[in-house]
Amino acid sequence: MKIEPWDEVSEGAPDTRRIFTVRSDVVRSRATGREHTVDRLLAPDWVNVVAITDQHEMLFVRQWRFGARTFTLEVPAGLIEPGEEPLAAGQRELLEETGYAGPDARVIGTVLPNPAFMDNKTTTIYCPRVTCVAEQQLDPMEELQVVKIPVERVERTLKEGGELATALGMVALMWWQMAR
Amino acid sequence: MKIEPWDEVSEGAPDTRRIFTVRSDVVRSRATGREHTVDRLLAPDWVNVVAITDQHEMLFVRQWRFGARTFTLEVPAGLIEPGEEPLAAGQRELLEETGYAGPDARVIGTVLPNPAFMDNKTTTIYCPRVTCVAEQQLDPMEELQVVKIPVERVERTLKEGGELATALGMVALMWWQMAR
Repeated sequence: MKIEPWDEVSEGAPDTRRIFTVRSDVVRSRATGREHTVDRLLAPDWVNVVAITDQHEMLFVRQWRFGARTFTLEVPAGLIEPGEEPLAAGQRELLEETGYAGPDARVIGTVLPNPAFMDNKTTTIYCPRVTCVAEQQLDPMEELQVVKIPVERVERTLKEGGELATALGMVALMWWQMAR
Repeated sequence: MKIEPWDEVSEGAPDTRRIFTVRSDVVRSRATGREHTVDRLLAPDWVNVVAITDQHEMLFVRQWRFGARTFTLEVPAGLIEPGEEPLAAGQRELLEETGYAGPDARVIGTVLPNPAFMDNKTTTIYCPRVTCVAEQQLDPMEELQVVKIPVERVERTLKEGGELATALGMVALMWWQMAR
């Protein structure tokens, strides 16, 4: 089957919430000429961080997640501010959420979080040899516990199921495995 | 820092779209007693499928994605219908999107797609030794091209960047790597 991009026909009214904007737009197939309404979630780009200490531990944050109503263990992560580079955003989020920083941060991968309805990207930063240099600096809604897991135990912990099984956290681990 | 679940205070009005419902609810911290409004996206559970042919090729579908406005190469995927088991849903989606089926499908992992604001799960099914048994059966909005990539080339293709870099597709590959 030959596939083509779809054309944009019209934009719905934006419903702007705190962390995203919802909009249902009309698009048209070049193959059939038919129009369909598609739901979109517009959001800023995100960044997440694989940070490893000199003791070969990976840093995670444990927090209550409002969508899934459960605790998760995820790599430090957050929004990229307007005009901010992903690398700087990752280092900022790492410092705010954990108090850790390191000398050699670099970008190791970029992924579409959910191309079916989201327009944004998530970039993964790798920070080796991080050390604790400051206190956590959290937003009013953030209650985060820093958890260190020995690198050689991360995959086993993930396989055992539970709090590590979040999509963007797993993507960060996969970029890290491929970058090693 | 000690962390606790947050209590639910009140539900906002649901804004129901075609593929999800948006709702902004009020929650309260047990640590501070403060209330915050949180945006939620309520959606059915999803399933995706790692399917491999007798010729050691992995099946992907190439399609125009309305959220990211780009083509992606993703493993076959879709919604789990009410009352449907993930394993059955995965086999159904594989058959509809590609026309392929196999004798030994099994569940290899479950992940939270976005626990920050989504309430659903995605389960990954592994189907070895699939063969083409039918024509594609697509929904009116689906225009999909089936793409077969030799298994040994999948990771290299992903590293090269581009259409394979979608979060839930990468999660499916990671469950598959860990299940081998």
